[in-house]
Amino acid sequence: MLARLKRSVTASGFSAFLAMEPLRCWSGESELVVELTPQLTQHHGFAHGAVVGAAADNACAWAAASVAGDVLTSSYTIHLVASAKGERLRAKGFVLGSGRRQATVRADVFAETGSESRLVATALASISKAGR
Amino acid sequence: MLARLKRSVTASGFSAFLAMEPLRCWSGESELVVELTPQLTQHHGFAHGAVVGAAADNACAWAAASVAGDVLTSSYTIHLVASAKGERLRAKGFVLGSGRRQATVRADVFAETGSESRLVATALASISKAGR
Amino acid sequence: MLARLKRSVTASGFSAFLAMEPLRCWSGESELVVELTPQLTQHHGFAHGAVVGAAADNACAWAAASVAGDVLTSSYTIHLVASAKGERLRAKGFVLGSGRRQATVRADVFAETGSESRLVATALASISKAGR
Amino acid sequence: MLARLKRSVTASGFSAFLAMEPLRCWSGESELVVELTPQLTQHHGFAHGAVVGAAADNACAWAAASVAGDVLTSSYTIHLVASAKGERLRAKGFVLGSGRRQATVRADVFAETGSESRLVATALASISKAGR
Repeated sequence: MLARLKRSVTASGFSAFLAMEPLRCWSGESELVVELTPQLTQHHGFAHGAVVGAAADNACAWAAASVAGDVLTSSYTIHLVASAKGERLRAKGFVLGSGRRQATVRADVFAETGSESRLVATALASISKAGR
Repeated sequence: MLARLKRSVTASGFSAFLAMEPLRCWSGESELVVELTPQLTQHHGFAHGAVVGAAADNACAWAAASVAGDVLTSSYTIHLVASAKGERLRAKGFVLGSGRRQATVRADVFAETGSESRLVATALASISKAGR
Repeated sequence: MLARLKRSVTASGFSAFLAMEPLRCWSGESELVVELTPQLTQHHGFAHGAVVGAAADNACAWAAASVAGDVLTSSYTIHLVASAKGERLRAKGFVLGSGRRQATVRADVFAETGSESRLVATALASISKAGR
Repeated sequence: MLARLKRSVTASGFSAFLAMEPLRCWSGESELVVELTPQLTQHHGFAHGAVVGAAADNACAWAAASVAGDVLTSSYTIHLVASAKGERLRAKGFVLGSGRRQATVRADVFAETGSESRLVATALASISKAGR
């Protein structure tokens, strides 16, 4: 699963640009990190909102994929709770419920500097199983 | 306002990469387009989800900025209703209500090919006024 | 359709208590009104948040039912934009997109006093088709 | 705090009808229960969606009130993950982040029968501090 995800994130232009690294994807849980290189930040070193959103969305989709195979994001809600400033973002996804056709998934996104970690965003997503 | 937005979208690495073009930003409404170059799409020519999300988020923030000055996205919900395949995305934002501290904004994102246009996503956001 | 909805809203204790009156339910659109009797308001005559939420949820579900038959609410997001004070609430639902398994629906809720009307809440919902 | 909440839920018609019982409200956390009497259920004994929504909304608002005083719900998103059937609902709220003007709060709603408990809904809310 991790090997397949790693291939998928380097396959296309935009995913390769974001360079999300999957660390864990198993039994309804996922974890990924994104290094906050200058090309992913805005003025003052904050992660661009789209990078935070993509980290949350990917963590949700990957957690759902670990129990449901091919999936598509149907909707997500993201609340930004603190400035996304740091050396990297870490996102963790967790499937809360899974039916025949879709899964409800929560993700938290943290900004990390050295050994410090701070919650910067939380999301709730509906992820659909493909082709059903 | 448009000139200021245009400068801001080319100022930083990630915004420049996304290359959202503001067309209109006035009296609580906004409109922008994004050309779907290969670097913004996934396999099969679909816009990457983060690009659709960023188009909706920017349309909401810019519509709010037109009535409230400096703003920050506080939260947004996006529902993906069709595949985001086309030559470009067009997003339109519209302020539904605005209080002392935040605005509620709706945005619709369309995928366009030639003169055809199709709704691909809709969003609802809370945009906070900065520093209040 | 309206007759069936009217029977369903008087059939059970809580629906009868809320007494939402369906006015229109056709081709992906719906409209309903709720009289703001003292039992549905909080201190100072404002509609209780659960009444505003139920009006939005029902408008979304009924609009979806008009194109999809038996439905169940899967998720909804509601933004409260003004105080829900007035003689009655009016909610209008509108299907934005409908796939094989679910519909994305928008609803606006207005508070009315005499001939004045004011937007008090807006919602975005995913409504699932039952049994598929 | 609990005594104040208990007075507020019996003060007005609709809150008294819902009869949410606050159990805990302290340091950004809250817990409440609702007995699923026939008047709060639909056909087949399921809790009406508006009751589930109100339980989640109250849990979020009360958790925020425990750190912020007077509050108002600004927006919430609720995902329904299983049928809300049981003897009672239990909702737990937890403040994820709190700024000068608003708090981001998560709530989970469980349906209980005897000693069995099942997650039926999860919510994410923005709760505003009143008058600021």
